[in-house]
Amino acid sequence: MNAVGVIVEYNPFHNGHAYHVKKTREETGADIVIAVMSGNFLQRGEPALLSKWDRAEMALKGGADIVFELPYQFAVQKAETFAKGAVEILYKAGCNSICFGSESGSIADFQATLRYMKKHNHLFQQQIKHHIEKGVSYPKAMSLAFQDLPADEEIVDLSKPNNILGFQYLKAIDNQGFNMQAYTIKRKNADYHDEHFSSQTIASATSIRKALFSEKNKMAQIKQYVPEHTFHLLNQYIKKFGKLHSWENYWPYLRYKLLQTNQEELKAVYEVEEGLENRLISFALHADSFKDFMEKIKTKRYTWTRLQRTCVHILTNAKKYEMNQSKVSYLRLLGMTEKGRDYLNKFKHQSDIPIVSKLSSFYNNQIELDIRSSRVYALGAGLKFQTKLLQAEFNHPPIYLSQNK
Amino acid sequence: MNAVGVIVEYNPFHNGHAYHVKKTREETGADIVIAVMSGNFLQRGEPALLSKWDRAEMALKGGADIVFELPYQFAVQKAETFAKGAVEILYKAGCNSICFGSESGSIADFQATLRYMKKHNHLFQQQIKHHIEKGVSYPKAMSLAFQDLPADEEIVDLSKPNNILGFQYLKAIDNQGFNMQAYTIKRKNADYHDEHFSSQTIASATSIRKALFSEKNKMAQIKQYVPEHTFHLLNQYIKKFGKLHSWENYWPYLRYKLLQTNQEELKAVYEVEEGLENRLISFALHADSFKDFMEKIKTKRYTWTRLQRTCVHILTNAKKYEMNQSKVSYLRLLGMTEKGRDYLNKFKHQSDIPIVSKLSSFYNNQIELDIRSSRVYALGAGLKFQTKLLQAEFNHPPIYLSQNK
Repeated sequence: MNAVGVIVEYNPFHNGHAYHVKKTREETGADIVIAVMSGNFLQRGEPALLSKWDRAEMALKGGADIVFELPYQFAVQKAETFAKGAVEILYKAGCNSICFGSESGSIADFQATLRYMKKHNHLFQQQIKHHIEKGVSYPKAMSLAFQDLPADEEIVDLSKPNNILGFQYLKAIDNQGFNMQAYTIKRKNADYHDEHFSSQTIASATSIRKALFSEKNKMAQIKQYVPEHTFHLLNQYIKKFGKLHSWENYWPYLRYKLLQTNQEELKAVYEVEEGLENRLISFALHADSFKDFMEKIKTKRYTWTRLQRTCVHILTNAKKYEMNQSKVSYLRLLGMTEKGRDYLNKFKHQSDIPIVSKLSSFYNNQIELDIRSSRVYALGAGLKFQTKLLQAEFNHPPIYLSQNK
Repeated sequence: MNAVGVIVEYNPFHNGHAYHVKKTREETGADIVIAVMSGNFLQRGEPALLSKWDRAEMALKGGADIVFELPYQFAVQKAETFAKGAVEILYKAGCNSICFGSESGSIADFQATLRYMKKHNHLFQQQIKHHIEKGVSYPKAMSLAFQDLPADEEIVDLSKPNNILGFQYLKAIDNQGFNMQAYTIKRKNADYHDEHFSSQTIASATSIRKALFSEKNKMAQIKQYVPEHTFHLLNQYIKKFGKLHSWENYWPYLRYKLLQTNQEELKAVYEVEEGLENRLISFALHADSFKDFMEKIKTKRYTWTRLQRTCVHILTNAKKYEMNQSKVSYLRLLGMTEKGRDYLNKFKHQSDIPIVSKLSSFYNNQIELDIRSSRVYALGAGLKFQTKLLQAEFNHPPIYLSQNK
């Protein structure tokens, strides 16, 4: 069986995602769609609206056959590391292709970009260094350095964040020498980061989240942009666990963590460096909310996203030595359809790393971070639902969807 | 001027305390009453109902002239260490006597007890060891060992917790060779740990706290047992900071702390030993409240109080190396009356340790624990009042009460 991989966060799953999965199957002709999905904390340094189990269910109901968790060690990371881990998971899961969404919709453009960037790598690195020395953030320096390179009409514009991930996927395949073909599907409407609704059926996850945390008619506002099963699962989740998760739910814990620690302890946390520890501790005394805190600690040197990721690492106590990027060492199965199960039954004999269906069967330092982050994540539920969500995280078998889904 | 010391927690200040201060002045003939008071966390391993500033104000309005804070390093400790630190503070503050409350009311009995215990110390220590080996807690072993000693009619019964503190005060004076005289005042009614009201005007702090956390008529229930100023300050505090403090306010933080750490980190915390770390982490997953948690972790080996203190140390991140009992190194001034100020103005020139009126003027490892525990304490206020309470903790000048109090 032919398997294609998609790299997702589904926060939450919406009509644009459904379209992407459908087109992925059509364009690649694959029998099986395998999604690798961030766990409870996401690439941009945020808690997911609802737990990985519910998002895995959305993924299966939305057309994926198998969902694996992208380990925390790769998920809560800059684009390059995120892409590296995700592509490796898909390769280890037997995918011979991946398919991602993009504005351009032309894989040839991305391939040309990869060749172009390899050719100009030396100049590119030089220019990044040059811009960083002027005090801008790393992503900003990359964007400026890219603009400094000689013009080329065939390549995609890497000064736009939307194109970065696709490029990093191709680079990860190339760097690791994986025999995988890449496809891209042109996105329908909705800019990735768009905060407002601008179409009848397609909206960005950002705008959907914004509506979900708005003052009123939350659910009514998003109804037309998500499949019925997403709508149902969101409603169910609020009933089961009291609320959806946002950074504000974790602010008391982050603040507590910062107020009971000291500089030395804090410096052991991943990405806390260059005196950031003092800044974080001292502003924790004065900020009334996570938003307020972020606005206070923000500087030109770090992007909002980078700081949010750092805050996630502090919250989950992810140490520098724990986040040393290693190889992917397991495939944590979050869910499968009947067809997905058939695939796994055959594939599991040829997999060179364990497929983990229950936590009691596997343990190492990489999965320890997934476990710990899920424990912390559960404390973002309503106070009286925390124990229930903690238990759900640990006793949960993979979601299974039989044929008549 | 003649100064007498009292050792207090005032959680909250009640009519029994007012009686004790008044009698202390009468019996000792002292010009000045100096109170050494636990800060925001108390000897029995609990957060104080309201902050040390409000309790210092209660103390001054209730008859004390000066209030010093007992550093965290001595306050959240077993009776022996608590007594040692408290007596040392009073001695350093120039007191030539102390006066404590007791059931017996006879200082001669306590003095006889001290002589008796010194005489039988070898047998006593042997018997403690013997009982501990059978698996009981340290305080239980002490109580049993005491009962094993030869009978003597003149001594106080140290198998009763009420008498332990008084004995420890005398022992601390004796051990440290301080030239201080001890007095004791017979307590009026109300057993120290009594949970129910049994008199018209005197009630134990335990029963008052119980009423304050009951379902209804909280304040009306306690009115007759506390001075008007206590009643007013309690009401004010709830208005200012949303609620009174109880362990349940801190349960989410303690749970979070336990769920994001590991055995090794937890073992660095003071009093976490002998595998307790595993027990604490695993029950944090299943307990819905602090009460539930305590009931789950309780064993014969540790008293409830000892476990509560351990939980405070985990909450405040008080490490083993930080809690190594050292000498008292400062006198943190929480409040004074006009008369108290006159005394301090003269006394400060002969004090061999600094009198700390504001945090910006002094820093060492001992006061670091007071600061950190106050930061954590502030997070037990209502969510929107935390910043206000954090700021109150740090910018607060000593309470000053002019003559017409």
